[in-house]
Order: sequence, then structure tokens, then C-alpha cells
Amino acid sequence: MISEQMAELTRSGSAIRAMFEEGGRLAAEFGRENVYDFSLGNPSFPPPDAVRRAIGDVLNGAESSYAHGYMANAGFPAVRDAVARHLNALHGTSFTSGNIIMSAGAAGGLNVVLKTLLNPGDEVIAISPYFVEYGNYVSNYGGKLVVVPANRANFQPDPAKLAAAVTPATKAVILNSPNNPTGVIYTADTIAALSRALEKRQAELGISVYVLSDEPYRELVYDGSEVPYITKYYRNTIVCYSWSKSLSLPGDRIGYVVIPDEIDDYPLIFDAACIATRILGFVNAPSLTQLAVARCLNEKTDIEAYGENRRLLCDGLKSAGFEYVLPQGAFYMWVTAPNGDDAAFAAAAKKYNILVVPGASFACPGYARIAYCVSRDVIERSLPAFEKLASELGLRKD
Amino acid sequence: MISEQMAELTRSGSAIRAMFEEGGRLAAEFGRENVYDFSLGNPSFPPPDAVRRAIGDVLNGAESSYAHGYMANAGFPAVRDAVARHLNALHGTSFTSGNIIMSAGAAGGLNVVLKTLLNPGDEVIAISPYFVEYGNYVSNYGGKLVVVPANRANFQPDPAKLAAAVTPATKAVILNSPNNPTGVIYTADTIAALSRALEKRQAELGISVYVLSDEPYRELVYDGSEVPYITKYYRNTIVCYSWSKSLSLPGDRIGYVVIPDEIDDYPLIFDAACIATRILGFVNAPSLTQLAVARCLNEKTDIEAYGENRRLLCDGLKSAGFEYVLPQGAFYMWVTAPNGDDAAFAAAAKKYNILVVPGASFACPGYARIAYCVSRDVIERSLPAFEKLASELGLRKD
Repeated sequence: MISEQMAELTRSGSAIRAMFEEGGRLAAEFGRENVYDFSLGNPSFPPPDAVRRAIGDVLNGAESSYAHGYMANAGFPAVRDAVARHLNALHGTSFTSGNIIMSAGAAGGLNVVLKTLLNPGDEVIAISPYFVEYGNYVSNYGGKLVVVPANRANFQPDPAKLAAAVTPATKAVILNSPNNPTGVIYTADTIAALSRALEKRQAELGISVYVLSDEPYRELVYDGSEVPYITKYYRNTIVCYSWSKSLSLPGDRIGYVVIPDEIDDYPLIFDAACIATRILGFVNAPSLTQLAVARCLNEKTDIEAYGENRRLLCDGLKSAGFEYVLPQGAFYMWVTAPNGDDAAFAAAAKKYNILVVPGASFACPGYARIAYCVSRDVIERSLPAFEKLASELGLRKD
Repeated sequence: MISEQMAELTRSGSAIRAMFEEGGRLAAEFGRENVYDFSLGNPSFPPPDAVRRAIGDVLNGAESSYAHGYMANAGFPAVRDAVARHLNALHGTSFTSGNIIMSAGAAGGLNVVLKTLLNPGDEVIAISPYFVEYGNYVSNYGGKLVVVPANRANFQPDPAKLAAAVTPATKAVILNSPNNPTGVIYTADTIAALSRALEKRQAELGISVYVLSDEPYRELVYDGSEVPYITKYYRNTIVCYSWSKSLSLPGDRIGYVVIPDEIDDYPLIFDAACIATRILGFVNAPSLTQLAVARCLNEKTDIEAYGENRRLLCDGLKSAGFEYVLPQGAFYMWVTAPNGDDAAFAAAAKKYNILVVPGASFACPGYARIAYCVSRDVIERSLPAFEKLASELGLRKD
């Protein structure tokens, strides 16, 4: 009787959610300290102290009278202005509050933008491996997800393959860098080549193809890596940002959408995205949290701690004989499944109380994702278990 | 190029939003103190002090480690359990955390439930006058809104008319009591008669028709009026609640959905609603605010202050010669447009810097809504302007 799409989703479940529940079961059986749950991208580090102070300041300060009230659906004008100025200082852009819509994280922002853009049957391209929710977000609005595999040598998108996938029905391309699940940052050369390829296809077909840049991991980078700001490379770019990871606020649901003046059909798209925010039931991004993050634009979570996790895990897995992509950003490690069987790999790992997500969950079998946004302690205690797993799998040690 | 639904919405705009902008324009021209803006349901009173204390306690207490983190999409189990126990104490129900999903207000909850229930072409019945967003919420999921007028004598729904509107395509009926825009509370007799009529139609047609009880105004009642709890009258009831008005937290986006065990297709609907919360991009209701409201379940905004506004406005408008429905709940007054022309009434009111929303915005021309969730001062200063307006309109004084 209920929605057919939703009934189907209840049957198929979520592999990541199943892992999460399996973690709970194993913890109950073996003790939480003997389970190494790398399944969820849930930051283990608390927000910077500045966030708590900012919330307290808003509650007790001059802003308290409207900290809980309605405002324009796009968000508080002063908050949007602060975000625009912050981005301009970082990237040399020229945004104003008229380019910013506050959102319930990047997930909320992507839904608002896809609701704004898509007619039933429109196509949205994603680069695999990709965050599995993209498929649901696109089908929420009757769209069709078209998958283009990344280059398996380096997990950068392939401009020629992307261009070939663009059809008259293409409305958008979702890019996600630093990438979940690979940890790869798309290089400036890649972005420039993708942009040229898309500009050419737009002109050939007489259509507008919007790049939706999904950026929850922008600030989580290692070794001083740069993450190119895509609006500077490709005119029809819309950015969906989240503070979930950069400030460890995933439960608070706060982020923003950037809709530059230069895109085709601005301001129609800006107006429609404000209305989509309202009618999807978000109404506005949470008000108190909007005011708090506006005071923390230069704050960041403890990236050194994630970097130390990364170092420990890379060293341990390399020494055990695993192959992986060296993460440049985010907090994910993309490991090659021995013999190419990711389901068997995840099942073998579970025998040692190690929970990883098979690559099939990201439309890329043959690999597995390790989310190392856990405490350092979990990493350290997991390494002997990884050694035993490598042994069982017959991996050759260094 | 963009979504046709959204492009149409940008063209048609929102009459309430237009009023809001007109209020800003008038305030700039005549001074904020000389404009009487009754257009928006935005509570003017701050949240109870207990809310601020609760947020501070969560930030500084044992809960701080997870106050900003992910949890199950349905919300923190302890929060859901507290909500269930609170409802049981109030209404003699037997809910558990397994019946509660925390939501981004009632707007978020309604979207989650409609996403869960509707297949394209399904019909959802609303009683006019109704909150205009219902039409957008329903069409978000391909549904068709079917409008059944309330009884014009008392603005109670008419059970016979409702029964006649139920077809094999009917999936849900939205009820909203205390009602926006009329301020009417649906009586126990009305609810009982509606329930009998719907049970009969369900049986005749062999379908499940869910009542979605939209309850943001449940706590805002005057003269000790009772608001019947609809799950106790009609088995297939789903409740969408919000703390936006009862705790003056509209910007924070916090509420819950009640999905009782007894409804047809529980637990499929519960599971699907959790997934809908995730894939629509809400992911979960804002985490810090979940924990805070769970500590304030017995707190309420200053209902006496709304009651005083109501008294002043009723006395003033009666004395000026206006006809209206005496509000039993919410903070809206439903005024008969002289000569039945609500557009002309709103236009005439604007000449005296009084902003009201024409009934056409609620699918009920011939009336206008006055939102009296303003400061008492605004009411007092507006009364001479209402007198002048009545004079211009030729209303006979008492």
C-alpha cells in the first residue's frame, strides 16, 4: 500500500546500516574494546571548543532574541554574508549573500538542488565509486543516475568517459573531492580537463549541465594538499558544503549551498532553491546552529589526529601486505580486496571483529572502505587483527 | 531548463511571503512602530528560559560527547523514549520509542510521512481552509490534493462530505486542529464522526486511509479547551508534532512523528519513514535540539500572553464591527471579509498599514487571517487603525 520506492528500499536495506548494527552485535558479544568498527563516517572527535563557546555566546548575547526564530528560507542574511566573505577570502571569488543558501548539511543541500533542477527522466552523472545516497537523492525527484567509472589507476575521473556519458537528458554531474570512499583529491588538471569536456558537450548539445560539487571533506586534507575550487574552473558549478566533518557537527545538520551569479538561469535557480528548501520541509537550516557556525568559520576539527590515524593505519596495513590508495583527504582508506572479492574480504574481516564496507556499496566491487574517523586507540588495537586477517588471506608481507 | 514544478512555483510566489516583504517595505517607509504586520505565524515571544538552560546543560554535561553526532535516523533512543512516555502520561496511550521518529518540525515530519505513503496519483484530502503548503508537500511526491470544505457555520469538518471525497486512490487525510487559519479546535464529536465515516469508507473500498494529524498548535489553547488525541479515535492515525510554537523554536526545526503499532502496515511504514528521513536529506532531526527539548517536555511558551492578545483583538474588532470566528486555539483569528471580497479587504487594510492574509491563500476566499503572535503593543497600537478601516468599509459598530 505504501510508496513503491520506499517499500523497495525497506527490502534492500543499507549495507552500511547493516554493518553499523553488526558492530553493535559484535560489541555485545566480544566487548566494545575488541571490535574494530570502521564502517561509519561518524567523526569520533568532538567539535572544537570554539563551537560550544559560540553556541553559548549566541544564547546569552544580543542574538538570542532571534536565535530560535524564522528567517528568510535561505538563512540569516548576516550569516550568508559572512559565509560569502569567508569563501571570497579563501578562494578569491566574489560571492555575496545572494549566492548562499544555508542548508541542513550537504545531504539537505543536494536534495534542494536536485529538487530545483530535475524533471522526471533527467539524468545525473556520478563518478564511481560514489556515496551510495546519490542514487536515492536523484530518484527522489524522478531522475536517473548514470554512473561513469573513475580511472582505476588513480581514481581520478576520466574526462573522455564523462563527456561520452553526457546526453541531451543530462542535467547535472556530481563531483565529490576529497572523495568518499577513496580519499582521493581531484587534481587541478583533472578539474580543468573535466571542465573543458563538459563545456564542449554543453555547446554541442545546446544544454546546461550543472556540476554539483559535494564538499563535506574540503577541509580534511593531508600533506598540505590543495582542493581546487570548482566554481573557478567550470561556470555552471553549484557547491554543496557541510560542517558535519570540518567541525564534527554531523548530527546538527548544518551546511550551505553556493549558487554563483554566473550559472545559467540564475536567479531563477536561486529563487527556486529557496522555495525547495521551504516545501521539502526544511523551511530553513537550524537557526541557532547557523548563528554559531558563522562565528566559527576559521575553526577546524583536529586534522592532525585524523592524520595520525591515517599514518598508523597506512603503516600497519602496508606492513601486513594490503594494497590501498594513499588517502589525500577525507578519513577513508580504499583497500583492494584480495582476489577482487569484496564481499569475501568483508566477511573474512568480520571473523577478526573488523568491520569494513564492501566496495559494492559504492558501485565499485573489488575494494573495501575503511573509515578511520575512530579513536587512535581503535586503530592501534586493530593492527594485530589486520595482521591475522592478512595471514588468513595469504597476503605476502613486505 | 529547471524543474517545471519549481519554475511554476517561482512564478506564482507565496502570498504570505509577499505580505512579509510588503511589511518590510511599509516599515521602511512609515517606521516599524506604525506598521501592524499580522501576516506571519512567527512567535514573537522568546522560548521559555528552561530551553536555554537545557541547551547549556547538554553542552556542558555528560551528553556533550554525542550532542553533535550521528544517531539512528529516527533520533536518539532516549529522546524518543522520553517523548513516548510524555505522550502516554498525557493521553493514556502506550507508545514506545518504536513509535516515535524525531523530525525537522511538523513540515519535515509531513514530508517524511507523505514520501513514505504516496505513489504518483494517490490522493490526499485536506479540509479547507488549510495551510497552503499542504498542496506543495503532497505534489512533492506526485500526489493530488483533494479539498473538502469545512462547515462554514463553525469551520468543523463535515464527516459526510469527507466520506464522499474518499476514492480508491485516497491514501491520507490531513487534519489540523487547533486549526491554521481559523483557530478552531475540532471537537471530540467531530473527530468521532470523522473516524466512523473513514472506517466505513476503508471497509467499503478495502483500502487503508491514514489520518495525518498536523499538530503544531496542540498546546496553544484558550479557556481550558481540550484537543482530542486522534490516535484514540481512529486507528490509522499518524501524528506530526512540532515544538515550533509550543516552545517558540520555529527556526530550530524540531518535532516528531508518532507512528502507532496499530496502524496498517506498521512496521513497514516505520522503517520506510526512517529511510525517508535519511534520503530526503534530513538524515536526523537536529541532535543538540533533540536532547534539549527532551528536557523541556513539560515546558510551554507564555500562553497567557497569547490569550491576552486574543482578548484585546477580539474586543477591538468586535467593537469596530468586524465579524470573526472566536479562536479556541493557535494564534490566528479568522475574520469575515466585508462584502465577501478578501483581496479588497486586505488591500483596504494595507492603506492603514495593517497586513492580513486573504483567505484565498488558504483555499477559502471571503475571509482573512490575522496572526496575533505579535507583541501586545502591536495589537494595542493597531486598534485605532482597525477602527478607521471599519469606517472606510462602512461596518456598523455595536
